Order: sequence, then C-alpha cells, then structure tokens
Amino acid sequence: MLSNIQINENRLWDSLNEMALIGATKKGGVNRQTLTDLDKESRDLFVKWCKEESLFVTVDQIGNIFARREGKNNNLPPIMSGSHLDTQPTGGRYDGALGVLSALEVIRTLNENNYLTEAPIEIAMWTNEEGCRFPPSMTGSAVFSGQYNLNDALSIQDPNGLELGNELKRIQYNGSTPCAPRSIGAFIETHIEQGPILEIEDKNIGIVTGAQAQKWYEINILGMEAHAGPTPMSNRKDALVAASEIVLLVNSIGNDFQPGGCATCGVLEIGSPSRNVIPGKCFLTIDFRHPENKILNEMDKKLRNTIKLIEKNNKVEIKIKQILELKSNVFNKSIKNIIQDVTKKLNYSSKEIVSGAGHDAVNINAIAPTAMIFIPCIDGISHNEVENVYKEDVTKGAQVLLHSMIELADNSSIIIDN
Amino acid sequence: MLSNIQINENRLWDSLNEMALIGATKKGGVNRQTLTDLDKESRDLFVKWCKEESLFVTVDQIGNIFARREGKNNNLPPIMSGSHLDTQPTGGRYDGALGVLSALEVIRTLNENNYLTEAPIEIAMWTNEEGCRFPPSMTGSAVFSGQYNLNDALSIQDPNGLELGNELKRIQYNGSTPCAPRSIGAFIETHIEQGPILEIEDKNIGIVTGAQAQKWYEINILGMEAHAGPTPMSNRKDALVAASEIVLLVNSIGNDFQPGGCATCGVLEIGSPSRNVIPGKCFLTIDFRHPENKILNEMDKKLRNTIKLIEKNNKVEIKIKQILELKSNVFNKSIKNIIQDVTKKLNYSSKEIVSGAGHDAVNINAIAPTAMIFIPCIDGISHNEVENVYKEDVTKGAQVLLHSMIELADNSSIIIDN
Repeated sequence: MLSNIQINENRLWDSLNEMALIGATKKGGVNRQTLTDLDKESRDLFVKWCKEESLFVTVDQIGNIFARREGKNNNLPPIMSGSHLDTQPTGGRYDGALGVLSALEVIRTLNENNYLTEAPIEIAMWTNEEGCRFPPSMTGSAVFSGQYNLNDALSIQDPNGLELGNELKRIQYNGSTPCAPRSIGAFIETHIEQGPILEIEDKNIGIVTGAQAQKWYEINILGMEAHAGPTPMSNRKDALVAASEIVLLVNSIGNDFQPGGCATCGVLEIGSPSRNVIPGKCFLTIDFRHPENKILNEMDKKLRNTIKLIEKNNKVEIKIKQILELKSNVFNKSIKNIIQDVTKKLNYSSKEIVSGAGHDAVNINAIAPTAMIFIPCIDGISHNEVENVYKEDVTKGAQVLLHSMIELADNSSIIIDN
Repeated sequence: MLSNIQINENRLWDSLNEMALIGATKKGGVNRQTLTDLDKESRDLFVKWCKEESLFVTVDQIGNIFARREGKNNNLPPIMSGSHLDTQPTGGRYDGALGVLSALEVIRTLNENNYLTEAPIEIAMWTNEEGCRFPPSMTGSAVFSGQYNLNDALSIQDPNGLELGNELKRIQYNGSTPCAPRSIGAFIETHIEQGPILEIEDKNIGIVTGAQAQKWYEINILGMEAHAGPTPMSNRKDALVAASEIVLLVNSIGNDFQPGGCATCGVLEIGSPSRNVIPGKCFLTIDFRHPENKILNEMDKKLRNTIKLIEKNNKVEIKIKQILELKSNVFNKSIKNIIQDVTKKLNYSSKEIVSGAGHDAVNINAIAPTAMIFIPCIDGISHNEVENVYKEDVTKGAQVLLHSMIELADNSSIIIDN
C-alpha cells in the first residue's frame, strides 16, 4: 500500500510555466543556454524556491546545485532526484526543467504533509547538460561522477572563446563544495521521452531500463580557397563538397544500422564563407548512437574507412577527433522494480524503454544506483521550440517519483546493486 | 610608334605594398571588406594620392570615387580606368587594388612627363565589387550603369542586419554626385587573371574578349529540428542532409557541363546549429558560370528539376531564389585591338582570354565601350591570402594600360561600337 499523499498538480504546472518564462522564445520554446545571464536567472529562481522549503543549498566547483531535506536518519546516504535547467538554443519548456521541478514538487508535498522520510532527500541541478555552448554535454554530472577532470571541464571554451570556468564565476555559481563522487542511496531522473514511442503506444510512464551507447566526433577538413569563377572544376580542393559527402555518409550509416542506429551531423561551419569563394575549410560534428556497444563500434569503423576515401577523392586533408564516448548503460534493477510497482499501484499504464538521449542519470549510474522515469512528449518532438507535454502526464510522472522516493528513503535496504 | 614615356615600376609596386598594409592578414593576404573601417582607410589613402596629383575627386551616391585629370578638349567624354579596393575575407593583395593603382600610375606618369592628353582621363574606384558582405557583388558599377536600383542597393543588409546605405554614411563616403550613366569614351580595367591559364601558357598579358554568364542563387531549406538521440532515422526531416545533396548536385552539374562550366556553393549556414539537434533549417548559396548563356540555362534547368526530387525525398521544403543574372559579355573590339596593338609594339607576349570572374568592367560594358587587361597570378590562385603576382607582370600590365589610354585619349574617333 502506498501512502495517500499526492503531489499538487497545479503548483507543479505553474512552476514549470514560471521557469519557462526565463529565456522564452516567440515560438513558445526556451533559449536558456548554460552559464548565460538567463541560466543564472533560472538558477536564482530555483534556489529561491528551495530556500522557501527550508532546504540546505550547496553549490559545487562545477556549479552543480544540491538542495537537501534532512530525514530521520541522516547517516543514511540521500535519495536524490533532479535534472538540469539549461536548454538548447531552440529548446523546449520541459527538457530538464521537468526533472528539477518534479523533484522540488516531491519536497513541497512532503513538507506540506509533514512527512519525514527515514533517509534524507536531495534535489540535484546539474551544470551544462546540453553541451551546445560548451561541448561535450552532461559536464556537471560527468565531473561529479569522476568521469571528467574538473580543470579540463573549467577550461572548455564556447564558440566565442569564453571559458566555462570564467562564465561560472561571472554568474556567481562557482561554488566551493568539492565536485567529486560521494555516497548516494539512489538517483532518479524524471524526463520527457524526447521520442515518439510512449505516445504511439499510449502509455503514461516509461520505465527506463538503460541508455544507448554514444560517440561524438569533430571533423576538420582542409581544402584550398579559390575564386569560384576562374578556377576550373578539375583544379578544385573544395572542403564543402567533402563535408557534404561526410554528412550523407553519416546519414547512410544511421540508416544501415537499423534497428536502433542514430547518426546526425548537427554543426557544419565553413571557415570565412563567401558566395564566390570555393570553401577551403570546414568543421563538422557527428553524433552516433546505438543500444549496443559492439554495433556502435561497427558504425565507427565504417565512418573512418569511408572518410579515408572521401579524403583521397577530394584531394583534401580530413582530421577526425572523437570527443565523447558513452558506453551503453543498464540502470539499477531494484529501483526500476520499485518504480514499476508504484506505477502499477497508481494504476498508470507503463512500458519499459531504452533512452535514446544521454542524460545526467547515465553519468550518475556509474557511482550510485540509478533509474529514470519518462513521460510522453507530443509527437515525440524535443530540442525544438514546439516541444510539448500533456499536464496529466506531468502529474502522473511526479506522482510516480514521489512514491518511489518515499519507498526508497524509508526502505534503503531494498536497493541492491545489479 | 608609341611615345617613349614609361610608368615607374617601383612607385607602382610600393603603392601596391602600402595599400596591402590596410587589412593585412598574418598569412600575407588582405581582409578589407567593403564599407568597414579598413575600407574607409583604403579610400582615404587613395583620395590623398589622387589629390597629390591635383585630380578633381568626386564621390557618388553609392560611394563610387572618380578622380579626373583634364585634357586639351574637355568636351570629349573621359577615357576611364579603375577597379575596386574592397577584398574578400580571405582576400589577396592584388584583386582590385592592381586596377585602381595601375590607373593612378598612368596619371602619375602623365603628370611627371607633362603629357596632356586630348580627352580627359578618369580613375574609377567602384563600391562593393566583392559582394561578400553585401551580396550581390559589383553593386557600385551596377547602379552607375543603371542595372541596379540605387535605393535597393542602399537597403542591402549584411549578415548582422546593417544596411549598405547606413554603412556608407558611417564611413563618410555617401557622396552627392548622382549615381547614373554618363558619357564615357572608353573604360579599361586592369586585373589579375584569377585563374591559371596565362601562367600555364607563359604569357605576360591577357587580352580579355568578354566575360562568362553568371547566375547566383539563394536556397532556403526547412526541415524539422529534433533531438539527435531518440528520433528514429525514419522520422527525420534533416535540412542539412538535403543541403548536402544540393552541394553535391551543384558540384556534379559543374563537372557535367565541361568545358567551361563552373558551379560552387560558397556559403552554407545551419539555423541554430547544435551537435545533438537534427538541423531544421539551412541556408545555401550557389554560383553558376558558363561562357554561353544557352548552356547556363541548361545548368539552371538541371538544378531546379533535381532540387524538386531532393525536396520530396527528404520531406523538407526548399525555396530557390535567383539573386543575380549576368549575361555573357563581349567587350569592345576596337579597344581590344588597340590593347593588342600596344602589347605587340611593347614586345610583350599575349593571349586572348574569356574572364571567368565577374568584374566592374562587365557592368560598364553595358553603357560604354569597355575592355580589360589581365596579368598572370601565381598558380592561378585568387580570393585567397596567398594570391601573388610577379612584379614584372605588374609593370607590363601598367605599361600596356598607359599606352592604350594615351592612344584612346588622343584618338577618340578610333573607338567604334561593336
């Protein structure tokens, strides 16, 4: 039997709407890129709300924010939930914010019901999940989980040459708490699915069993700039033609490795572009994903072999640099079982699902028992200003989170490592 | 018999070097884009040099600069020569500057020899030849020759939304002289070839018989932004994949229409690019050239038909806008004959050649008898910071220009319309 306390659906919905005003775009989305003035504004609002709930707020060296509610036994490791508040340049209102504010709603509900859990509870707000301004993504949780060096992370530059560490100082979120692994009882991240499966199958809750393996690359192509008019076709070293061949190669690799393969070029930049100059330099990014590490390695091999041919055929130089590798992740089965059990008791429909996107939970899974709760998003659209959800799904997601966290906090011993 | 006066090769070479300091890049090139502070600096230096030669300087409504040396009979239309001082972002030291400063050297030579020509002589410095900041190119000469509306030209915006007319005011080159066709006896533009032909055939002087036909296009592609991870390959509307197919189509059209066809995509921009977002918007430019109007139209047809297929296959919307059309040009035969005759009398080797690039001379050819003199450039490289020439070729080009202008100014009646 679950306790009969319930989250306040309007309070959660209103907080999501208020947060979405910060960086709101004309098309109804949000542009709140990490460590900008708008990111600071969203952090300030979140911290204000946490303090209103009498939570103990700390900021670590990479700007991750933790808000703690003490339990009966504060020697127990905390049961933690959270996500991120930064967005893509053409981001939506729910990617990240849903997970942070659902965790806040859990605390608000416990407070108003005077429900004291056995273990303490913490909300986590991770820095730079999106990685669009400071690649790679999920930096805050990667440093926290010991998978990325702190000083390397602080030195990452944005396209204008500004450093992550300096921008953190500028917005005054360069905290003093050491950013390093510590004991966590369990971590649960609530998130929109960012894909179409739950909606197509008409399910309320996605019980996430793990996440896809990923590889990110940067490609630099060096050809020769020359005048577009008097330079015969046969004398050209066109960097954009080579880049275009790579974009189509990447797309065909995605199509060839079905089911499950995803392959995307998200950024393509010409050095000093001009309409009547043959491009001499191109920069290109590649994002490869697959549920199986082994098949992702096959995609990698095909990419590298074919790029050698593209280099030769176009008389250009091509450099490939892999900048991110995430192995496929399996989440904690005992937490997954509790989420499944709670979902069933609440009479919500659910489906086990593999996350196509990377999430901070994937990093935390390396140091603590971790799981995720997905809710559907309309038409499966995310990283887009029209990203949207149904209020009833938001409510159900937070309700599942609330009771799963109570179960975990009151019965820590049920958590068993995989 | 030619008169025995000679240009001063060191003075011309020194002026070219001094001008190349304005916007000089580390790699030995020049970045002096139109209507920037650096463009103003180059104009100021040119005007200072003209005033030192007692020339009468006027600036017209689009910022074209004219510097006039009176003749014996100032009722005769002027014999004019010139080019431009703006450069590409990765431009060279000679593209444009050679034509302006060779014309200045002609005047300096006439002045120091007290040689008074029958007709007056003018130098022209045309605004925004390159078109890289404010497309399309050759704006100043296009408005002057009545082929582009003045107000339309003043409203062209750069990528930051700054207007050409406002930038002209800002650098104080918004002159009051009407920018409209007037009577010109002859126009000759001296320029580097910007291709490899003269060097390969070991010729000093290119006698330019005309210029290729050109069409420029802007392509806008609308797909759908979505998260690169959880969006299955089959659900995508990837604008960059469509753009890449167009880049390769353009390249294959260039290769298919040989000899003579040139086809280039110089600019490709993704709207709000991010490494883990499927691109939803792309902007692309195309530059098509061919010596024959008829064949250029066939290239146009192939482009439009195949883009329809690319649009359908990628489930995106593609808009094509043609923003420039230049018909193939035939220059004035009587001026060409005089240049050929002078070259022969000076004992320089020469070759008739069709210009692959557009030039201000192509616009002026619509309203006045016009021709061009080419000199070789090393490895045929231009629109590149390593663009280079041999000093002896610069000298020979200016020497041919000097004597051709004297012939034309002293014997205006030999100029016959084609």
